[in-house]
Amino acid sequence: MLVDLQETARILESSDNILLLTHSHPDGDTLGSATALAYALKAKGKKVAVKCGDPIPKDFDFMFKELENDEFEPELIAAIDVADTKLLGREFEGIYAGKIDLCIDHHGSNILYAEKICLEPSSASAAEIIYSLLGIMGTEITPVIASCLFTGVVTDTGCLRFSNTTQRTFEVAAKLAALGADTYNIIQVFFETKTKTYAALERLALEGMRFYLDDRCALICVTQDMYRQSGSNESETDRLANLPRQIEGVLVGVSMRELKDGSFKASLRTHGDINASEICKRLGGGGHAGAAGCTLYGNKQQAINSLIKEIAAELDAL
Amino acid sequence: MLVDLQETARILESSDNILLLTHSHPDGDTLGSATALAYALKAKGKKVAVKCGDPIPKDFDFMFKELENDEFEPELIAAIDVADTKLLGREFEGIYAGKIDLCIDHHGSNILYAEKICLEPSSASAAEIIYSLLGIMGTEITPVIASCLFTGVVTDTGCLRFSNTTQRTFEVAAKLAALGADTYNIIQVFFETKTKTYAALERLALEGMRFYLDDRCALICVTQDMYRQSGSNESETDRLANLPRQIEGVLVGVSMRELKDGSFKASLRTHGDINASEICKRLGGGGHAGAAGCTLYGNKQQAINSLIKEIAAELDAL
Repeated sequence: MLVDLQETARILESSDNILLLTHSHPDGDTLGSATALAYALKAKGKKVAVKCGDPIPKDFDFMFKELENDEFEPELIAAIDVADTKLLGREFEGIYAGKIDLCIDHHGSNILYAEKICLEPSSASAAEIIYSLLGIMGTEITPVIASCLFTGVVTDTGCLRFSNTTQRTFEVAAKLAALGADTYNIIQVFFETKTKTYAALERLALEGMRFYLDDRCALICVTQDMYRQSGSNESETDRLANLPRQIEGVLVGVSMRELKDGSFKASLRTHGDINASEICKRLGGGGHAGAAGCTLYGNKQQAINSLIKEIAAELDAL
Repeated sequence: MLVDLQETARILESSDNILLLTHSHPDGDTLGSATALAYALKAKGKKVAVKCGDPIPKDFDFMFKELENDEFEPELIAAIDVADTKLLGREFEGIYAGKIDLCIDHHGSNILYAEKICLEPSSASAAEIIYSLLGIMGTEITPVIASCLFTGVVTDTGCLRFSNTTQRTFEVAAKLAALGADTYNIIQVFFETKTKTYAALERLALEGMRFYLDDRCALICVTQDMYRQSGSNESETDRLANLPRQIEGVLVGVSMRELKDGSFKASLRTHGDINASEICKRLGGGGHAGAAGCTLYGNKQQAINSLIKEIAAELDAL
């Protein structure tokens, strides 16, 4: 059942032991939103834990600095920024699927798996929803909470650059800055710092960029061999996703990465009216209108062919 | 004489024929600030013209869409975002140096050449100052004015990413977004779109990146030969300036470009307490603490050596 922010606040306030789940392969929005909510619930005297099916990259350590997971038998299990139980990761899906009481999410592709769902697809990030929620709950937004939410806001909008960014997004970012979010350092870490290995990987990926469909589609493909050559690894590939779409005239930017099992993860970024989520859905994936993903099988050329075919269909339908 | 915003408003309001000058090699801040002020003054019934010593790149056309220069004998000449009369460009310097009644600027390195100077070095952009000024003048900020100012705010802060970005910068950006600035398209044009020739130039520049001073300094150098290889040209080099500093551990990022006369323009971007303006001043240049520039002579290696020597001195003084 879909619930609004008021009902969501009531559900959270009526529980004393709350487990918050993030999605696997965690990003700034799922972690920032969950930790911000955890700090707020703890300030209300509740026992809270934040759990993720994957290890949390060290760039996010600052979110957990003042946060310790309490020990308890959860009364309420809430998934934050998780569109599908599959995205909890295999182990967590096994444990928690079917037991999720509340989901707070902004993905239009949410499969509505939770008992109560607070869904705001117009929000660029789950953090924007949590910001409103904390206002309703009357929780003080401390500098650390502001930093967690600011991280969610910027990481899900390409630092306020993607088409999901609204006037409200700018307003929330400004409010969080005024509340003491460590805006400069957060932006440096997530947008303005490249490891040398990432920089080398980026160069290899860009050298291999190819154009399709009258240059309306640009594609890069990171192979296992490129990881070996650059000294980089899969954890550093997320930022590559935005590069192909930056080329003038490109409507669909694709970044593929070869997994160890030989399959390919594809991330799509689109301009204008082209719905990335629709393209990816037809290949078993999903996401947002401007940013979506899917998994492709077969060798590299087969994977590219199947993707380009669906992109062509979407472009032809314009 | 330094004047505050109130006095600046009074000076502008007491003149009927106002010429606004931008700096040469114009950027989003000098143009956005001058055009925004021009729209505002025209709304007050004044005759206004905006002039620049260099041609205005087509990316800025939207600022002039509803703006036509009036014909008049200027009663007041105001320079906007111009730290030094040299920056007016050779021709304009010859015509206007010594005749500038008012300067509105945010460069700490301003040489105080104008009769009245409204200087706010704590503002990340001149556009932030103009935003406050329009508030004092009681001018309506229309969507086109909001777009002009938003362009200034984002282009002078690397899209809110540089260390000059303050809580106030975020607040002004959010206010301008709410007032109808075309935030998405402005950001796309200035930060998320690369021509194919620029992308090729960027690859060549990054391939040639070199590290100095225990990897605390990274340097790229764009040569005339790279323009030939990539099909790019000098007008596309500004964005390269931020790339060297993005490498983890780099405190001073340098982007040099070879001019046709064989000299080199260097742009420095620094982290933390390292003052780029101090380094560049010792080489005859100037700018801000986090971003500054200078011209270097001699062959490429000599130019690099003289720069690295000054950077080393600055780093040693830490």
